[in-house]
Amino acid sequence: MCQLLGMNCNTPTDITFSFEGFRRRAGLTDHHTDGFGIAFFEGKGVRIFRDNCPGASSPMADLVSQYRIKSFNVIAHIRKATCGDVNLENTHPFIREIWGENWVFAHNGTVDVKVCPNNHYQPIGSTDSEAAFCCIVASLKQRFPQKPSEKEIFDAIVDIASEIAKHGVFNFILSNGHWMIARCSTNLHYVCRKAPFGTALRDDDVMIDFREYTEESDKVTIITTQPLTKNENWTKMKNGGYVFFKDGDVLFEIEGTLPECNPHV
Amino acid sequence: MCQLLGMNCNTPTDITFSFEGFRRRAGLTDHHTDGFGIAFFEGKGVRIFRDNCPGASSPMADLVSQYRIKSFNVIAHIRKATCGDVNLENTHPFIREIWGENWVFAHNGTVDVKVCPNNHYQPIGSTDSEAAFCCIVASLKQRFPQKPSEKEIFDAIVDIASEIAKHGVFNFILSNGHWMIARCSTNLHYVCRKAPFGTALRDDDVMIDFREYTEESDKVTIITTQPLTKNENWTKMKNGGYVFFKDGDVLFEIEGTLPECNPHV
Repeated sequence: MCQLLGMNCNTPTDITFSFEGFRRRAGLTDHHTDGFGIAFFEGKGVRIFRDNCPGASSPMADLVSQYRIKSFNVIAHIRKATCGDVNLENTHPFIREIWGENWVFAHNGTVDVKVCPNNHYQPIGSTDSEAAFCCIVASLKQRFPQKPSEKEIFDAIVDIASEIAKHGVFNFILSNGHWMIARCSTNLHYVCRKAPFGTALRDDDVMIDFREYTEESDKVTIITTQPLTKNENWTKMKNGGYVFFKDGDVLFEIEGTLPECNPHV
Repeated sequence: MCQLLGMNCNTPTDITFSFEGFRRRAGLTDHHTDGFGIAFFEGKGVRIFRDNCPGASSPMADLVSQYRIKSFNVIAHIRKATCGDVNLENTHPFIREIWGENWVFAHNGTVDVKVCPNNHYQPIGSTDSEAAFCCIVASLKQRFPQKPSEKEIFDAIVDIASEIAKHGVFNFILSNGHWMIARCSTNLHYVCRKAPFGTALRDDDVMIDFREYTEESDKVTIITTQPLTKNENWTKMKNGGYVFFKDGDVLFEIEGTLPECNPHV
């Protein structure tokens, strides 16, 4: 299985503290060594860095840590291959253009994706994850030739993704650079950091005092497979739960009423 | 105006020698300082590095030079903005998925793009270049829901791009990782390097002896706006000319029968 990391904020934020703890799991503190990828939104553009080397030792990951890019929305992924070879085209996050926007997607779990409604979007690699993502955007484009409201997008994604999730484990993070949607089958946690800010202690015992880096109005939400800090109040999402984050806040939410029974859980 | 650089080979090749000469034009030897981008195909995947800093001083460009990625197909671009703001989403090369392949596109010139046949692909930024690229892939997808032969793709692109080129200057390089198409309105040159290999002298007087780096069977084609070396036999493409390169060779060609009369030339 893989691990996911997402960040959604109301101010451009440097993800290095969380990313450094996260990437240690890719070869040092855990075994997700089959590639890593990270996407930073910058305006309507996206910078994506991907490597099929382990995140803990990738020179591309070193660059990311040194470069200290600030962004409103970031999605990262470390991979333990379960489906598809270890190569660049199978490395998350995946990206597609829909309605003149970049959409970025990363998945944890294994799903059996049935045939898509059309060939509007086709997978480039051989992962179930990219196939599922193509299925989501193809279905959305079919339902909405023009971009609908955020609530309509959220409702449609809940509908489409819940159908896909019937056939596997479907934890994912998806962003268009303005909002971020998190969907949980088995494991996904989030924490919303806002004033009054305090300190956080990473699981490798590195401490940060957010008061040194933040303004009173800042809101920063971190979404991840497993909590990255020991002393913060992480919300564990429920099976079948969806959260729509914008500007670091929860805007829409479905708690998760369908406990998913799956042998992979 | 901008400058283009493309490489198409039959063996994975390090583009550093050509790229170093090329990026010097982005701020040192010339004035193309409004961003740079480079895309390396790796299997079906693509690594794209883009920066809205000048290519000559961009830390991203330094990484590219140090990393020495070897690839069969590379497209690079240095930008002098004529249309669209200087930001990440307006930075070439642009990328879209068509028929389950990554297609990468970079343009030099200014075109007035009329309405696309459909909204299958929509520009994310505000450049004429991305709008023209979206128009090409949308038209292709409309003509061929399934991927046709390479000759059919070439013929269709000639048809579509010649229509777009009626409304401006349309020099471009396009690749799907297997082949590379070059299209000339005003300025595009190429050289095919193959045995017997010799030396090349870059315009900043750096010399390379290709015999130290090549095998007898290697074929490496470099396509660029202005020749990068002083002592090689560069072919200057004609107005309205198209070349389809594969494995470092010319596979299909249209010499250019329509001299384009354009005030921007």
